[in-house]
Amino acid sequence: MPGGQALLSGDVRALARAISAVEEQRPRAVALLRDVFPRTGRATVLGLTGSPGSGKSSLVDRLVAGYREEGRKVGVVAVDPSSAFSGGAILGDRIRMQRHARDDGVFIRSMATRGHLGGLARATNDAVDLIDAAGFDPILVETVGVGQDEIEVVRTADVVAVVLVPGMGDDIQAIKAGILEIADLFVINKADHPGADKLEAELAYMLDLVEGDERSRPAIVRTVAVRGEGIDELREAVRAFLDSAGRERRLARRRERAEARLRAVLAERVVRWVVERTFPRGAWDGVVEDIAARRVDPYTAVEGLIERLEVR
Amino acid sequence: MPGGQALLSGDVRALARAISAVEEQRPRAVALLRDVFPRTGRATVLGLTGSPGSGKSSLVDRLVAGYREEGRKVGVVAVDPSSAFSGGAILGDRIRMQRHARDDGVFIRSMATRGHLGGLARATNDAVDLIDAAGFDPILVETVGVGQDEIEVVRTADVVAVVLVPGMGDDIQAIKAGILEIADLFVINKADHPGADKLEAELAYMLDLVEGDERSRPAIVRTVAVRGEGIDELREAVRAFLDSAGRERRLARRRERAEARLRAVLAERVVRWVVERTFPRGAWDGVVEDIAARRVDPYTAVEGLIERLEVR
Repeated sequence: MPGGQALLSGDVRALARAISAVEEQRPRAVALLRDVFPRTGRATVLGLTGSPGSGKSSLVDRLVAGYREEGRKVGVVAVDPSSAFSGGAILGDRIRMQRHARDDGVFIRSMATRGHLGGLARATNDAVDLIDAAGFDPILVETVGVGQDEIEVVRTADVVAVVLVPGMGDDIQAIKAGILEIADLFVINKADHPGADKLEAELAYMLDLVEGDERSRPAIVRTVAVRGEGIDELREAVRAFLDSAGRERRLARRRERAEARLRAVLAERVVRWVVERTFPRGAWDGVVEDIAARRVDPYTAVEGLIERLEVR
Repeated sequence: MPGGQALLSGDVRALARAISAVEEQRPRAVALLRDVFPRTGRATVLGLTGSPGSGKSSLVDRLVAGYREEGRKVGVVAVDPSSAFSGGAILGDRIRMQRHARDDGVFIRSMATRGHLGGLARATNDAVDLIDAAGFDPILVETVGVGQDEIEVVRTADVVAVVLVPGMGDDIQAIKAGILEIADLFVINKADHPGADKLEAELAYMLDLVEGDERSRPAIVRTVAVRGEGIDELREAVRAFLDSAGRERRLARRRERAEARLRAVLAERVVRWVVERTFPRGAWDGVVEDIAARRVDPYTAVEGLIERLEVR
């Protein structure tokens, strides 16, 4: 498998082609993933999420520069299912990232698969594996929005940073349980804006309410990404989290990621198999027609299908 | 089935409870959906999507008022998987909608299911069915963000309106193919802001490039939702689209929706069934552990599982 070999040796063009193959579910994609799989699981995956406009791309840009100074090869995956709608600000951020474009030690990729039912999460995890196999570490996974699929991708990273900004409504009312669950650390970006103190105080108060155990409380780091302020502190907080979380927690997170991947692949493949096998040509369209005409509901239709399945 | 009867008679409390049952996948949910299914498919479903900050909620608020003046009962489903992160502006919009709260002819519901793999699309479509069965028509489905799942929900509506605003970066570079594919009509909201003419010209130019056939070109409607301007024109454009699209296109759209639903239910149920049946207690965890330790890749694991499936 020449593509696999080139990829494992860190060839970025082979890597880019491999990710495209995975995204488009080309036949060679599975063989490629299988090939490189034993060489994955080494990179630290850092997930960054938060509202649009919170400056995640600038943060990522600065983090990349910081990790490069440490001499590490850095991968970036921007998960952006909404690219069709994304505004100039986001485009501008992307362009800013271009300053790393000529650096072979930085690999940047946007994922915008418009697949069905978790296809984005599946493709993104596959891409992370490929980038990992190519020797990049850490890998930053940045979500552009905060949709369900994007959260799904980020929450199983080795460390999850949630980015908030003062005065954008990310206040006490808006920060609901979900965000606390997935955050290993919080970043208050644009910390030079009014309201940063208030946001930090509210966040700390809320974390105290929820956690109870002082040691496990996520750190709160203040940054002004566009000026590069607080980036060293953020990298330090990431490192501290990974150290203190320990091997047990890291393994638990990786099991979670493995399970999410198994479920995603299962959903894609099993559904395809079942549709192909249980619906002779035309029968599928007939069922769709019946549902559209309200003659049968989808639950009853699926139940009838499941009754015909057997496990050897 | 008393719940089903109350719902069919338009009882909004029964309707709210039914949607909760569907959202939380309670056992009675499927029976309820099955029960009301023959009474669905009557309402016109109007999907509204666009970037956060484009004023969709204000538009929906005004549309609701307009349809109420026509004497119609209106349903609203706000698809908001990102509610954990949503800002004050969105909360403010929600509160503004409260002016319809005491009107029994308006039913408003937010969907924020954090399920897996298309669960949001499945639950939202189920909710639309329930609202339809309760006699509301039209039903407006508004997405808060533009994530994959949200697009999935909206694109099979009877008419899809994509909301843009001038000067927010929704310019020619940002409007990619995806948005053109799903839009039946475009709304330029905040049309009193600078750049509205430019946005409309660029949009028209792009639509000309893509479509070719003048008759099928989506209409472009200008609104200033907060002042109620252009709302009558928007309702007229919706009506005109539905009239001109004709019965054939409407049926095709409904078949698409039926197929998407069949797939979503299939994914949820078949995957659950396969996991329960093919993995004796503990075996699932063993496979997850193998994937986490990189002993087996998820594709190979799933393939081994599929080999054991049979169809009667």
